[in-house]
Amino acid sequence: MLVKEKENVVLIRMDDGEDFFEALYRALKSLGMNSGVVAGAIGMLRDFEIGWFDVEKGEYEKEFVSVPHELVSVQGNISLKENEPFAHLHVSLAGPSRTVVGGHLFSARVCNTVEMFVCKTEIKLFREKVGAFWRLASE
Amino acid sequence: MLVKEKENVVLIRMDDGEDFFEALYRALKSLGMNSGVVAGAIGMLRDFEIGWFDVEKGEYEKEFVSVPHELVSVQGNISLKENEPFAHLHVSLAGPSRTVVGGHLFSARVCNTVEMFVCKTEIKLFREKVGAFWRLASE
Amino acid sequence: MLVKEKENVVLIRMDDGEDFFEALYRALKSLGMNSGVVAGAIGMLRDFEIGWFDVEKGEYEKEFVSVPHELVSVQGNISLKENEPFAHLHVSLAGPSRTVVGGHLFSARVCNTVEMFVCKTEIKLFREKVGAFWRLASE
Repeated sequence: MLVKEKENVVLIRMDDGEDFFEALYRALKSLGMNSGVVAGAIGMLRDFEIGWFDVEKGEYEKEFVSVPHELVSVQGNISLKENEPFAHLHVSLAGPSRTVVGGHLFSARVCNTVEMFVCKTEIKLFREKVGAFWRLASE
Repeated sequence: MLVKEKENVVLIRMDDGEDFFEALYRALKSLGMNSGVVAGAIGMLRDFEIGWFDVEKGEYEKEFVSVPHELVSVQGNISLKENEPFAHLHVSLAGPSRTVVGGHLFSARVCNTVEMFVCKTEIKLFREKVGAFWRLASE
Repeated sequence: MLVKEKENVVLIRMDDGEDFFEALYRALKSLGMNSGVVAGAIGMLRDFEIGWFDVEKGEYEKEFVSVPHELVSVQGNISLKENEPFAHLHVSLAGPSRTVVGGHLFSARVCNTVEMFVCKTEIKLFREKVGAFWRLASE
């Protein structure tokens, strides 16, 4: 992993085989970063788990995919949740047929590389519990 | 809805059941914001209408989807069109099968939440009419 | 094409029929821009080639699509590669059925318009060769 920060823009380059979230949280903690917006991330992921929230059941339907996919987009944000940085990320991923799947990202392994950029925000973001739901809020 | 602005970064958190565009324009008008770039938006949408522009017919083919979908990405910009802020947005959305659909966003209802970030730009953006087309331009 | 820059934010509006990469590199060179992050790009593309990297074969499987598609998202970055600006871009595109395809973008022609925003970064980005792979790095 390579982490560089200048003027509130952070580059996180993850390398082949790294655990995506382990690397991301290690980078965020090394920067003391609790509030941010993902500017984007491309590369490849494999062994990833994505989910679609079933509103009626009140739970995620999850799907695990082992085949390497092009990481086409990452959007989301970094907030403070129970005193730890928390990344809420949605992804889209293209497989061998070029068809794109996506949803909430639960876990993933980096394939070849991930080139991610996150912007620190002056808005202090945190998660507050509203019923069973951790809602995004700010000071 | 929650709206916060600091150093040209705007957080717009929309809440369950809100009309996406009504909320967005209310936020933009409260901020006096006519020029911006969407940094991203995730959450869920339901009852949304997306479109693909048929170049030969010169019109959009629209599709209305009622099933809640994960909002995977939003890209686009805010410009001044006939003296009102105008949002030109393209979205990708993941359904229960994790397959992603997308296109030009015409309307939508927020499901659970939408966490959106927009950056104000110093470039003054507006729409100018060129034939039947409202082209993005700047001063 | 229209190119405007203010406070490190660059608007590149490409017009119907332009070659996407030819226009992008012309804009980047006119700005002397070698390091940047794509904030987003929407519009339409036709005659585009996208690819999925086959890790086992060590090469891209490419697919050429002539039908105009809504350009739903572009993420990626600009870095210096062998003394020239280099754009590493992943895209998602929605066709007439609203289904989204995507992957690494190799080439494309602008259909109607592309509204692209790129942010200059203070982090100096370049590509370094590691085996057969041009890895993203920074000073």
